[in-house]
Amino acid sequence: MHKQTIKEVLENYKKFLHHDITVYGWVRAFRSNRFIALNDGSTINNLQIVVDFENIDENLIKNINTASSLKIVGEVVESQGAGQTVEIIAKKIIVLGDNFTEELQNTILQPKKHSLEKLREQAHLRFRTNLFGAVFRVRHAVSFAIHSFFNDRQFFYLNTPVITGADAEGAGEMFGVTNFDLDNIPRDEEGAIDYAQDFFGRKTNLTVSGQLEGETAAMGLGRIYTFGPTFRAENSNTTRHLAEFWMVEPEVAFNNLEDNIDLAEDFLKYVIQYVLDKCKDDLEFLDKRFAEEQKQKPEKERAKEGLIEKLENVVAKRFKRVSYTEAIDILLNSKENKKGKFVYPVEKWGADLQSEHERYLVEKHFECPVVLFDYPAEIKAFYMRLNEDDKTVAAMDVLFPGIGEIIGGSQREERLDVLKKKMEDMHVDQEELWWYLDTRKFGSVPHSGFGLGLERLVLFVTGMTNIRDVIPFPRTPKSAEF
Amino acid sequence: MHKQTIKEVLENYKKFLHHDITVYGWVRAFRSNRFIALNDGSTINNLQIVVDFENIDENLIKNINTASSLKIVGEVVESQGAGQTVEIIAKKIIVLGDNFTEELQNTILQPKKHSLEKLREQAHLRFRTNLFGAVFRVRHAVSFAIHSFFNDRQFFYLNTPVITGADAEGAGEMFGVTNFDLDNIPRDEEGAIDYAQDFFGRKTNLTVSGQLEGETAAMGLGRIYTFGPTFRAENSNTTRHLAEFWMVEPEVAFNNLEDNIDLAEDFLKYVIQYVLDKCKDDLEFLDKRFAEEQKQKPEKERAKEGLIEKLENVVAKRFKRVSYTEAIDILLNSKENKKGKFVYPVEKWGADLQSEHERYLVEKHFECPVVLFDYPAEIKAFYMRLNEDDKTVAAMDVLFPGIGEIIGGSQREERLDVLKKKMEDMHVDQEELWWYLDTRKFGSVPHSGFGLGLERLVLFVTGMTNIRDVIPFPRTPKSAEF
Repeated sequence: MHKQTIKEVLENYKKFLHHDITVYGWVRAFRSNRFIALNDGSTINNLQIVVDFENIDENLIKNINTASSLKIVGEVVESQGAGQTVEIIAKKIIVLGDNFTEELQNTILQPKKHSLEKLREQAHLRFRTNLFGAVFRVRHAVSFAIHSFFNDRQFFYLNTPVITGADAEGAGEMFGVTNFDLDNIPRDEEGAIDYAQDFFGRKTNLTVSGQLEGETAAMGLGRIYTFGPTFRAENSNTTRHLAEFWMVEPEVAFNNLEDNIDLAEDFLKYVIQYVLDKCKDDLEFLDKRFAEEQKQKPEKERAKEGLIEKLENVVAKRFKRVSYTEAIDILLNSKENKKGKFVYPVEKWGADLQSEHERYLVEKHFECPVVLFDYPAEIKAFYMRLNEDDKTVAAMDVLFPGIGEIIGGSQREERLDVLKKKMEDMHVDQEELWWYLDTRKFGSVPHSGFGLGLERLVLFVTGMTNIRDVIPFPRTPKSAEF
Repeated sequence: MHKQTIKEVLENYKKFLHHDITVYGWVRAFRSNRFIALNDGSTINNLQIVVDFENIDENLIKNINTASSLKIVGEVVESQGAGQTVEIIAKKIIVLGDNFTEELQNTILQPKKHSLEKLREQAHLRFRTNLFGAVFRVRHAVSFAIHSFFNDRQFFYLNTPVITGADAEGAGEMFGVTNFDLDNIPRDEEGAIDYAQDFFGRKTNLTVSGQLEGETAAMGLGRIYTFGPTFRAENSNTTRHLAEFWMVEPEVAFNNLEDNIDLAEDFLKYVIQYVLDKCKDDLEFLDKRFAEEQKQKPEKERAKEGLIEKLENVVAKRFKRVSYTEAIDILLNSKENKKGKFVYPVEKWGADLQSEHERYLVEKHFECPVVLFDYPAEIKAFYMRLNEDDKTVAAMDVLFPGIGEIIGGSQREERLDVLKKKMEDMHVDQEELWWYLDTRKFGSVPHSGFGLGLERLVLFVTGMTNIRDVIPFPRTPKSAEF
């Protein structure tokens, strides 16, 4: 990889000063037929190219416009103009690909403000905008930080299956996967669909979680994490839901709920600090954008903190740990609840918390990230460990400002008899999950884990507000373009 | 994470000498009612626990058997026995979970040799064996090395969609994804399946490659890589095929074929060197196992090199770069071909190479990894760049000893007119891929990329021979258990 990126040239320009170098990129702006702002995607910053008329053919210059792709050979010099420290005096310019200028008029590559909706319709081109360049570079940094965090702590990356025979994961509606010709589905003697003839010899779906498989691996490898796509066939056309999204699910043998909360807090702080350290330029751009967006809003709805300020505060503050029971008390006694300001009034212990309640706790009451724990057993999944009070489970949710739940997790029920009873009560198929029960029969151990939706975290870190804008090609009801 | 792992205790034992520590793990062996070999999955090495009868209740000891899970508190001392430098004199032992000893008899946790087939049937328990512990720790190291390699070189991780509306990726048969009730599929007025009523409002499939979407991103971000699950609905019940596997696909703007080959060679060497550095103990175990396996074979079929030796050689040797045309000449003139020893005789230029031909070139002729390039256009995909000879394309395959093709890639056709003609000739739907064509209309640039099947590489590095043994829960025809 001897080709230097624009990021390298800008960051190490002293090394290149007064040398001829070759750079590649796309034209972001072409000013006065003389100054080209060149960008290659490695950074949000452009490299200024100065066209040296003596060396460059006039006809060639006519072919250069916004979105043109260029190869430039020229000398690196200190810049006289404001706005950049360094620029390149072009000695040779090669136009790499033609532009279809008429079609270009209808694309988001036209240098003017486009709506996020229009950018989504041209998701294949939005990588070339400042905004989406920044978002996807940050998304990369978040992902890499996740791998680094776990690798440093002796976790092993586990790829749990996307296609699953299990129907009982219980986290939501599932998509079917089939190799059948839908015009000609084989049937058995009784006229029922004969899944034995399908590719896998059984009915299969797209996974909603790798947790159960992850637990089996943690029972041997100790510490594992999954990081892969998961699916929900829910018809939710909101700014917060995707049919396909990426989930991170660590699972740790021998960890109890407190260890699990410690891990979640360390994890979030590590990832956010990493992005603060590595994505300064992109975050500054996103911070400015965020501030502009806030200005458009009525004063009451504006965020209290700037984007970077918010991220720094999350890293600096200790997360407030509060039991569900304490949280319900706080909510029951809140002015908001008494004055009927919640859409869903909180009535009594046992109620499921809504996003508005979570945000009240985080943004108004505690003014810092909050970890709720020990939820009522009835509102949580079958695999969560029953507490000694016999009515709560060792569950925990991490709540973030502006976003509500960012992590959900629990200590798992490791006692076979308790687990089986819970599955019975909750109508979870024990035969199908024979392998899951097995892990409670041979050297069962206390263990804990949690799940993080990657896109929710990227939303939080970038200050974007629609989840479709933080994943390259969103999958939502009635939409699977590209 | 204040709990130290057994790996940490063994590697930093001087720090712990004569201190009391707490460790957790599963019993791998219990000798003379006195010596417990404890393993927690962090390393292939066990920690020896010495039961101190004065402090430990006899009844408790009766409850300890193979596969038991224990919490141990004890003093770290230098070991008197052979085989370990350090051991723990247990002061307190807590059995964490009961063992169902009768059922245990039928599991692979019984301490005797089990067939790989039997281990596969109990894939949820095989994480607790030495062999699969080693395999999955190595798989983790390979995955982390892949992320590190690309991150260090300013690539951005891109999550391309698993559910795709495209039918035309052309890399193989696809699984259908649907939310229809298969007993009640909606039909339009003409009686055809009404996909407009399905979840995404169209027919959707599981992706066979993220390359085309990856190219659109590289046209903005410069350097990207995908690393995610891909799917083939092919009824291949072999030791080399999976219906669901993980693929790595880098794509680089401005790279030509030679740059692409350089990248592939650097990449493979980096990842293998990383595993050699970080997985010494696991590789030594796998190396011994590999040697044992070779001994079982007839002398003619044995590998020339040991496992670690093979890996070191791949890193040390420069990959031999040979054009397809030269390779065909070598094959045509080989004794093997002339004597009819190939199952598929090589007859003339234009033939597709089989695994036996690739392995001949690598293992017999050149005795090093080989990169073949410039293949006949007809046997390669539509998106590969046509060379000036008008009959070959800028494709490349990296061939490895024992395994054949490990990487396949190409420079992509960036010229819109040439690409469109190729799609026409090869019957690829241009309307469906309108967005792909767009990237050739606005600042098109030369670019290149390749694909690596993760499991093939893990097979190579671990010396395993069945691809089902290097992925946690394999998906194959008639099998989607767990």
